Amino acid sequence: MRAEIISCGTELLLGQITDTNATYLAQNLSGLGIDLYFVSQVGDNLERIVETLRRAWERSELIIMTGGLGPTEDDLTREAISTLLGERMQVDPTLEAELRAWFAARGVQMPERNVKQATLIPSARPLPNPLGTAPGWWVEKEGRIIVAMPGVPREMYRMWEAEVIPRLSPYTGGLIFTRILRVTGLGESTVEQRLEAFIHASNPTVATYAKSDAVDVRVTAKASSREEAERLVSETEARIREVLGDYIFGVDKETLPSVVGTMLAQRGQTLAVMESFTGGLLSSLITDVPGSSRYFRGGLVAYSRAVALEMGLPTELVEEAGLVSEETARVMAQLARQRLGADYGIGITGVAGPEPFEQKPAGTLALAIAGPAGLVTSSGSGWRGSREDQKYRSALAALNLLRLHLLGIKKAQ
Amino acid sequence: MRAEIISCGTELLLGQITDTNATYLAQNLSGLGIDLYFVSQVGDNLERIVETLRRAWERSELIIMTGGLGPTEDDLTREAISTLLGERMQVDPTLEAELRAWFAARGVQMPERNVKQATLIPSARPLPNPLGTAPGWWVEKEGRIIVAMPGVPREMYRMWEAEVIPRLSPYTGGLIFTRILRVTGLGESTVEQRLEAFIHASNPTVATYAKSDAVDVRVTAKASSREEAERLVSETEARIREVLGDYIFGVDKETLPSVVGTMLAQRGQTLAVMESFTGGLLSSLITDVPGSSRYFRGGLVAYSRAVALEMGLPTELVEEAGLVSEETARVMAQLARQRLGADYGIGITGVAGPEPFEQKPAGTLALAIAGPAGLVTSSGSGWRGSREDQKYRSALAALNLLRLHLLGIKKAQ
Repeated sequence: MRAEIISCGTELLLGQITDTNATYLAQNLSGLGIDLYFVSQVGDNLERIVETLRRAWERSELIIMTGGLGPTEDDLTREAISTLLGERMQVDPTLEAELRAWFAARGVQMPERNVKQATLIPSARPLPNPLGTAPGWWVEKEGRIIVAMPGVPREMYRMWEAEVIPRLSPYTGGLIFTRILRVTGLGESTVEQRLEAFIHASNPTVATYAKSDAVDVRVTAKASSREEAERLVSETEARIREVLGDYIFGVDKETLPSVVGTMLAQRGQTLAVMESFTGGLLSSLITDVPGSSRYFRGGLVAYSRAVALEMGLPTELVEEAGLVSEETARVMAQLARQRLGADYGIGITGVAGPEPFEQKPAGTLALAIAGPAGLVTSSGSGWRGSREDQKYRSALAALNLLRLHLLGIKKAQ
Repeated sequence: MRAEIISCGTELLLGQITDTNATYLAQNLSGLGIDLYFVSQVGDNLERIVETLRRAWERSELIIMTGGLGPTEDDLTREAISTLLGERMQVDPTLEAELRAWFAARGVQMPERNVKQATLIPSARPLPNPLGTAPGWWVEKEGRIIVAMPGVPREMYRMWEAEVIPRLSPYTGGLIFTRILRVTGLGESTVEQRLEAFIHASNPTVATYAKSDAVDVRVTAKASSREEAERLVSETEARIREVLGDYIFGVDKETLPSVVGTMLAQRGQTLAVMESFTGGLLSSLITDVPGSSRYFRGGLVAYSRAVALEMGLPTELVEEAGLVSEETARVMAQLARQRLGADYGIGITGVAGPEPFEQKPAGTLALAIAGPAGLVTSSGSGWRGSREDQKYRSALAALNLLRLHLLGIKKAQ
């Protein structure tokens, strides 16, 4: 079944609100195994709504509309549907009685213009809306379905779940299951090249998305039962893991900070950090995870030479190796571990840019982990991008180094 | 000029992301006085993108596309435009050289599939993208314009502001000047109420937008010359400043960290911080500003009681007042100032949630500034929102307290 969403409201086209209704419905349709091919936003203009609706009528079997069911002159969804179908709107006595009762129950006289919320056309059945004054429409004609719901999210969510989903069950071909595999350390095009064989398959489908903190590999299967769809996804996931191995750090909503945090919490171990150019971002990412106080002790942000020395970096080291060097990162990791009393210490130093520092270009990075088993170090250079970008990518690299060390993949020297 | 937005990406139709690019562009177009009539989201399918594009070509003079400029096989925006116009894509040697240089600078071999990001059609001119590998396209043909930009918001925003808006000026019927006044400490609806008189004016237009770090008041004027437009904006700005006063902390791209940083740099003064529940975010926001090393010395992140004591918080204080209290914030500010040798120290403590701490609910906040003139404190509670939200709003509140203190508005006790 080909579905299409039409969101009505001039406020959408002025950028005053974002169409989160479409996101909600898109997620739901994908879960129901209904293919969504188009989403449109159109203003409160009868001609343009009808044009958009006619187009949808030609190419989709299910048209889901939100907004434009209010009582005012620029609420035109009902008018557009009746224009498209050439059916006249008429006040439905039952709906009118319910509507007047709704106002009476609130001790208010119903404004007469609200009576248009009690209208129907011959092909339309009302969708009850206990949360507001605008009932929805369920329209069936010529093998097409139009669902019209209010734009107010609260009212729309309830109507969708309680009224629309049950009425759709005869049409939902299969059930969908999706799992996202989160990849770090490889670029999107490299991931896609390695997964070429999977990307051309049709069930499960495999697609890659570049996110700011990872490359996401989305595996989606459709089957007659959720269990079967999940089984298909798991089969493909296993084969993808053979290809990408430890580059996959988590699934679905997991992040590098949450994955590392879970590993530490499970081992009952603790973490502390000392950072220079990331300026506190590494600590902040770690503490975005609820419950991080169970394993994160604290951090030292040395953003000036004087503070670095006051925090314990030996003057000779800073003079010989500089503030940005692997040796310095190593001592920072040990300082964090010892002074803040943690099982693991991360030391991270580098050049955020835009200017070079100590003759080292923006993007230079030096990382170290100090732990019970000893030290692990890593360094890089040449990353470009904004200052925030440098900080973010470097902090994630530090967390990934710790992840690989905890997995026993990066061995201490 | 009739404009239309087409956002490409299957992840939009699966509800995995919300089309905030469309919201951003819609706001901008309305500011430019360009009428936006339709917004469409379409998946990564050549036939459907071309269908949507053809429809737009028939009814709009300006078509703005986002997404689908990546290197992978499901990035199809270029292919769709060349199909619509019947023009062949060819690799542009200059673009290819730039692209290979981009990868070389990062010490990476360019995956061959990326070469398609260096293609053009005869009607297309490239739009530079210093933040990524995908240049945009500016296509002019038969009195129509198609603008194709990356879907990554950061890259799209920059391309829109630096490359597209200037190229649009001949079409915006007059020259546009916009200034954004950034407001903190008031909610959007309060700001809108206070500016009611301005919001109904037509030139300059005044509109408010809630951003994560401020309420933005956008003042846009249209005139025959840029100077005249700028004069109109400045007049209205002066009257708005009479209404909002010190709630306005900056203009255009300024942020609380950049504004505070500029004030400190101009005075040749320095800053250090000690934070608990913000977990390093306050330091990180401060160090997002280029040149912050001129005035930011460093930070202490005390995320556990033991570390708080090790960093110098007196045991009696922690036992009597607790880790979350104004007294503790005051001592933290003094510790940061003294131990890290700065003119100003910020102390920030509170409860990020979701769980209460020391019987204090999530959203509890205590702030202190220690400076040459003495101490300023502030506390709050009852904020709702995610953990990240709590951290972010609290860190911004600390920076705003310092701003008001530096302005002489918040006097030391």
